[in-house]
Amino acid sequence: MPYFDAASAAPLHPVARQALLASLDEGWADPARLYREGRRARLLLDAAREAAAEAVGCRPDELVFTPSGTRAVHAGISGSLAGRRRVGNRIVVSAVEHSSVLHAAESHTAAGGTLTEVPVARSGAVDTDVFAAALDSGTALACLQSANHEVGTAQPVAEVAEACRAAGVPLLVDAAQSLGWGPVEGGWSLLAASAHKWGGPAGVGLLAVRKGVRFAPQGPSDERESGRAPGFENLPAIVAAAASLRAGRAEAAAEGARLRALVDRIRARVPELVPDVEVVGDPVRRLPHLVTFSCLYVDGETLLHELDREGFSVSSGSSCTSSTLTPSHVLRAMGVLSEGNVRVSLPAGTAAEDVDRFLDVLPGVVAGVRERLGAPASAPAAGAADSASLVVDALGRRCPIPVIELAKVIGDVPVGGTVTVLADDAAARLDIPAWCEMRGQEYVGESPSERGGVAYLVRRLT
Amino acid sequence: MPYFDAASAAPLHPVARQALLASLDEGWADPARLYREGRRARLLLDAAREAAAEAVGCRPDELVFTPSGTRAVHAGISGSLAGRRRVGNRIVVSAVEHSSVLHAAESHTAAGGTLTEVPVARSGAVDTDVFAAALDSGTALACLQSANHEVGTAQPVAEVAEACRAAGVPLLVDAAQSLGWGPVEGGWSLLAASAHKWGGPAGVGLLAVRKGVRFAPQGPSDERESGRAPGFENLPAIVAAAASLRAGRAEAAAEGARLRALVDRIRARVPELVPDVEVVGDPVRRLPHLVTFSCLYVDGETLLHELDREGFSVSSGSSCTSSTLTPSHVLRAMGVLSEGNVRVSLPAGTAAEDVDRFLDVLPGVVAGVRERLGAPASAPAAGAADSASLVVDALGRRCPIPVIELAKVIGDVPVGGTVTVLADDAAARLDIPAWCEMRGQEYVGESPSERGGVAYLVRRLT
Repeated sequence: MPYFDAASAAPLHPVARQALLASLDEGWADPARLYREGRRARLLLDAAREAAAEAVGCRPDELVFTPSGTRAVHAGISGSLAGRRRVGNRIVVSAVEHSSVLHAAESHTAAGGTLTEVPVARSGAVDTDVFAAALDSGTALACLQSANHEVGTAQPVAEVAEACRAAGVPLLVDAAQSLGWGPVEGGWSLLAASAHKWGGPAGVGLLAVRKGVRFAPQGPSDERESGRAPGFENLPAIVAAAASLRAGRAEAAAEGARLRALVDRIRARVPELVPDVEVVGDPVRRLPHLVTFSCLYVDGETLLHELDREGFSVSSGSSCTSSTLTPSHVLRAMGVLSEGNVRVSLPAGTAAEDVDRFLDVLPGVVAGVRERLGAPASAPAAGAADSASLVVDALGRRCPIPVIELAKVIGDVPVGGTVTVLADDAAARLDIPAWCEMRGQEYVGESPSERGGVAYLVRRLT
Repeated sequence: MPYFDAASAAPLHPVARQALLASLDEGWADPARLYREGRRARLLLDAAREAAAEAVGCRPDELVFTPSGTRAVHAGISGSLAGRRRVGNRIVVSAVEHSSVLHAAESHTAAGGTLTEVPVARSGAVDTDVFAAALDSGTALACLQSANHEVGTAQPVAEVAEACRAAGVPLLVDAAQSLGWGPVEGGWSLLAASAHKWGGPAGVGLLAVRKGVRFAPQGPSDERESGRAPGFENLPAIVAAAASLRAGRAEAAAEGARLRALVDRIRARVPELVPDVEVVGDPVRRLPHLVTFSCLYVDGETLLHELDREGFSVSSGSSCTSSTLTPSHVLRAMGVLSEGNVRVSLPAGTAAEDVDRFLDVLPGVVAGVRERLGAPASAPAAGAADSASLVVDALGRRCPIPVIELAKVIGDVPVGGTVTVLADDAAARLDIPAWCEMRGQEYVGESPSERGGVAYLVRRLT
């Protein structure tokens, strides 16, 4: 049963499992204690810290273990903002950061701080010059992920770190998606990551803070982990996390190349096999194991269910999945189609046959969903063209219905005629322009609708 | 090799180990996902929450899992203080709370809040009337442990909860030390605990917040665990925590009675076997498995080392242990001797023979340490009594030297004469009065010393 959602949580690496078992016996005591069980725990903790620091590329005393990647990001951001309070209160982040970064930034603005979101290109990458231009003398901290968690695009971290250094601003890198594949290059100041993304256990994140970076831990004081991560150390999991990071790195070059080729196959084949698909993210500067595409006229939740029935576990940035009614902020920032969105992220060891079977199954699944939703055929129907403009009322209808309704009638207006789609679903704002771009039609713009919601105006060009 | 420090961290319960192993295979995926691995993880999480809630005595939707007991306390305190910000900014805590509570309270005062510390009796217990008197109309939150972590004394939680209810103040109970032995009685509002104290794994705490209690989670928002505990769920450890809580409870009545008898044996035998010992804490209203005593003329660190060499792992609230130069705030609040302090906390399953061997070994170990430190014999020497007052200069000397020097010369002054001890070690302020009480001498008081430090005045009575 192929699990293709490593970017959410990777299955436990065998080495992590072994290390966890061994340290359940050896590492359950309090490493601050002086008796033998405590000393043994301390040795394990020190060794884990050294191994993790080596993999990160920092000194052991620069690295602390946290209870999760999210907590590492929160502690890193709050600590460095507080440490540089006198410099200013601006935080600069890319628009496609992980929600843990964006939520920490929102928490900062709720407390009176200022936030600048740096936009991204359609590939999902920031432009170094644009990022650099956002840094000002009142900027306390900049944050940039090493690679995006939803579309896989690698960010120009080394270049942005250089720009940050020139501006005297520390850069926090969220390396959650990439650390298993290799160290983050460049002169970053802080780095956060999460063990369960690289095949380690849940319950372990890490935060590296370079010597010389101003840092003032927030919240109640605690003597453990340099005062940066309160609470009893989750030692067996920490040992397992460090061991699996090291083990995964030993395999990373070969396995990364193998998965990269599998992803290339998906990137190439999906548009050939499935009509009306947009594969998103940078095709080259990207994570080895992750690819995302969106299918017109499909809703994400149904697609996930159908793929799950076929045995494939994937995730989606579409709205209309059970937990959200708005499309992923990443897809929105990129300006790409969000409907029928599928993220495939291959865990280490994924069999090529499983990828092939996914490619076999996908076209039928998408076609089935489209058929049930009454999606139009790929080419616009050569309609009667009796009216130069039409209005489609999709108020109260969820993604992908507004786009489907648009596609159904576009052939009914003459070339040069317009279709106005009335919709109140959040995804329409993203998906109607994306549809126009994919189908060679002109997206004219939006205006408030008298009947509630928004009126999206589209002109038929072909 | 007997490990007698269960109050720091209990060895993993066999059921916890089994459950952890099973859920490493079944529970590594993201429980928010819709595919089968995610649904399986969600089922495990829901079942663990139900089991834990049953053991706590609350509804499952009142309970969240946190990364540690410390984080549960921090989140519980900050969330309820924020939720009742309009009522007032006072937090009331007992003087003997765990450091996680005291640090959270300090963090509150650093942000402008007010703190009232309720004193305790020599037994370590608060008086309900005194606690109730500290609650005023501006009190946002009160905190009381179920039982003390250093001396084992049980607090009158049900009575204090009633007083809090009458005053309209929510009560947070830190149940870290007692939850494995049984639910906390009474009408508490919030409850925090820590799995590695009951034989569960590290990396799991729990926080219960009763419906109707005003609560506003602090820090960056997160959709998991009702917004009260950010970060990816540490599911295998959560499952193991819940399973071991349930399993431990099934054994708690019988095992608690057995350990209670072993502790009674220690409480009775230690003063018979070792001269100049003070057994502290309430002898009856107490945790079943924990006993603490202090030995005059002994330094805690050396005592721990010697006991470790004999194979016994215990902890100490003395100063002069490697991590601190001040005695435990608990012993200080109780006003009991802090030097030569030993905490014995027996894990479930402790063999009676190990306790007997401890009682065999202890007298020789204490005598050896005393001999090396040049401690006086138990009775004051019938000295020459040539001077009515003496001054002992122990400036720059660490615990227990100031007390040893005092004991050496007390016989050199006549009955009615005085000894002044000059000392700058923090423990002297606690231990010189405690020595006077133990030896039937009069502690007159302290004054600043002209030569630095403090002058402690003692009058010989016997």
